[in-house]
Amino acid sequence: MPELRRDPVVGRWVIIDSEHSQGPADFPKDNNTPTHQAICPFCPGREHQTPPEVDAVRPLKSLANTAGWLVRTVPNKFPVLIAEGSLQKEGIGIYDQMTGIGAHEVLIEGPDHEKSLTEFTKDEMQAVISQYRGRFRQLAQDRRFKYVVIFKNYGSSAGATVEHTHSQIIALPMVPKTVLEELKGAEHYHQYRGRCVFCDMIAQEYQDKERIVAENNSFLAFCPYAPRYAFETWIIPKGHSADFSSIDETAQANLAQILQDVLKRVKKVLNNASYNYYFHTAPIGYANTACYHWHIEIIPKLTRSVGFEWGTGLHIVPTMPQDAARFLREA
Amino acid sequence: MPELRRDPVVGRWVIIDSEHSQGPADFPKDNNTPTHQAICPFCPGREHQTPPEVDAVRPLKSLANTAGWLVRTVPNKFPVLIAEGSLQKEGIGIYDQMTGIGAHEVLIEGPDHEKSLTEFTKDEMQAVISQYRGRFRQLAQDRRFKYVVIFKNYGSSAGATVEHTHSQIIALPMVPKTVLEELKGAEHYHQYRGRCVFCDMIAQEYQDKERIVAENNSFLAFCPYAPRYAFETWIIPKGHSADFSSIDETAQANLAQILQDVLKRVKKVLNNASYNYYFHTAPIGYANTACYHWHIEIIPKLTRSVGFEWGTGLHIVPTMPQDAARFLREA
Repeated sequence: MPELRRDPVVGRWVIIDSEHSQGPADFPKDNNTPTHQAICPFCPGREHQTPPEVDAVRPLKSLANTAGWLVRTVPNKFPVLIAEGSLQKEGIGIYDQMTGIGAHEVLIEGPDHEKSLTEFTKDEMQAVISQYRGRFRQLAQDRRFKYVVIFKNYGSSAGATVEHTHSQIIALPMVPKTVLEELKGAEHYHQYRGRCVFCDMIAQEYQDKERIVAENNSFLAFCPYAPRYAFETWIIPKGHSADFSSIDETAQANLAQILQDVLKRVKKVLNNASYNYYFHTAPIGYANTACYHWHIEIIPKLTRSVGFEWGTGLHIVPTMPQDAARFLREA
Repeated sequence: MPELRRDPVVGRWVIIDSEHSQGPADFPKDNNTPTHQAICPFCPGREHQTPPEVDAVRPLKSLANTAGWLVRTVPNKFPVLIAEGSLQKEGIGIYDQMTGIGAHEVLIEGPDHEKSLTEFTKDEMQAVISQYRGRFRQLAQDRRFKYVVIFKNYGSSAGATVEHTHSQIIALPMVPKTVLEELKGAEHYHQYRGRCVFCDMIAQEYQDKERIVAENNSFLAFCPYAPRYAFETWIIPKGHSADFSSIDETAQANLAQILQDVLKRVKKVLNNASYNYYFHTAPIGYANTACYHWHIEIIPKLTRSVGFEWGTGLHIVPTMPQDAARFLREA
């Protein structure tokens, strides 16, 4: 009998195929091995092929837009939103419109074209997290912006168009829909129970144990009870914290550790499959910090969404979360 | 400058790339031409290869589960929800679960393996609509069900696994998320303005004109102001109506006409691209019929959703709706 499960934050139901739970071998193979490329604009020595950098980690104090960087952030050459201009809002009859003001940056995670996050050293991984935090804090100072999204597409099936390891950062003039839904759900829960729903979820995960993937002093990684995708995995701070950008040095090091650990497990179990991950954190200046709890959602790209999912928002998940967690935990 | 546009029903913002609006030639080709198949289980003469039919249109009164049908509905051999059993709800700590009770049917739209909806005669097309309505009304009588979704996946990129022309019908024990969002948005609008938001949208579309694709006496087809996908097109009854299954004979004939007309335009303009369509109608027994307005959403499969869309719910639409509508209108 399939199971219908309800997400406790946003109230979304999902269908879990509990009778024929699919393991890693049941999905199409999608091995992402980087090839040597002579023309990659993200490689050192080609800094002039990107727009001028907005930030970088340069341990040897090399000059901006030259080689010698560990992490480098540049404006996206093909931005979905434009940084220059003022935010204009207009009503067109019953419709609403805003100018497409925002920022769209590319965070080049390392200089080596053939090295992915899973092969980074501890220092390299920490430099990425530190740059995530730095860019977030910088963009949050722009008064036109309400939200900053950090996300990564790994592999072409996940939408990566450049192979060289990178993330993207988009600053938005409004809070996006999925975050608004989480905020509303978490506020509603807090109003009735006086507790953070994510903190309760963490307690529940420690009690049930079966969906836990990994942990360290600051973070828990687990497969959520009502995921939308097979092998979906979340990384969440164990202590209550609404805002990613407020994490201290220790938490940054622990985040670098657990993110890399989970990505290694995903890579091993799912044969180097494509994936997306993105940060969900409180909007800029959000006051209800007792309600919300930031986290990272990692989504391996194993299945394709079709008409039914688009039309209903009801996802059909072919793998039981506890099975996915067991595969990842034992990897 | 890109444009941010807000959907007036659910409040979702989308980014429209208004500077580089993509035309039909800018998307990858994905031509779905059916091949002759010797082993299709949906072809006449192989009725025993599907579960026994639950309904059919048989103009010559042929026997059930034999050839001679015009439309034939059978239970899905691999159902996502199971019809047999009782609906059990359970709390697992902070999580909620239900047994996966529902119905999952396949509606085989016609006997000819190589004929798609766009090539159907008027009578054949009307038989499909009549069977949609008949199955909806039948399933709506089961007290375990709260919602019936009718949808179609055309082409393998849209998730079709069998080439022979068919739709699917799923009955659910709860109202799915996207419909709930529309209901809430429409109720909210009605509460403040005393009018149906969809009726207002139709009036606005007639005023603006530029997004209209086609119309007949009963229906309007248009590209919505804030779509999620390039060339997204809606078909909506011009008169207020919450429930698809209440449509009369004339409206059924007009729906058959406009649905086929729009699909022909989509096929011609987008080079026989894959698409999904699905019905959004009021839940079974829904009382607020003054607020809601049923419609069909047609989504050509031209782009792929990636981490950013999943993480934010913010879609990036590469084609201006008025450009899409012009291409479809002039086809």
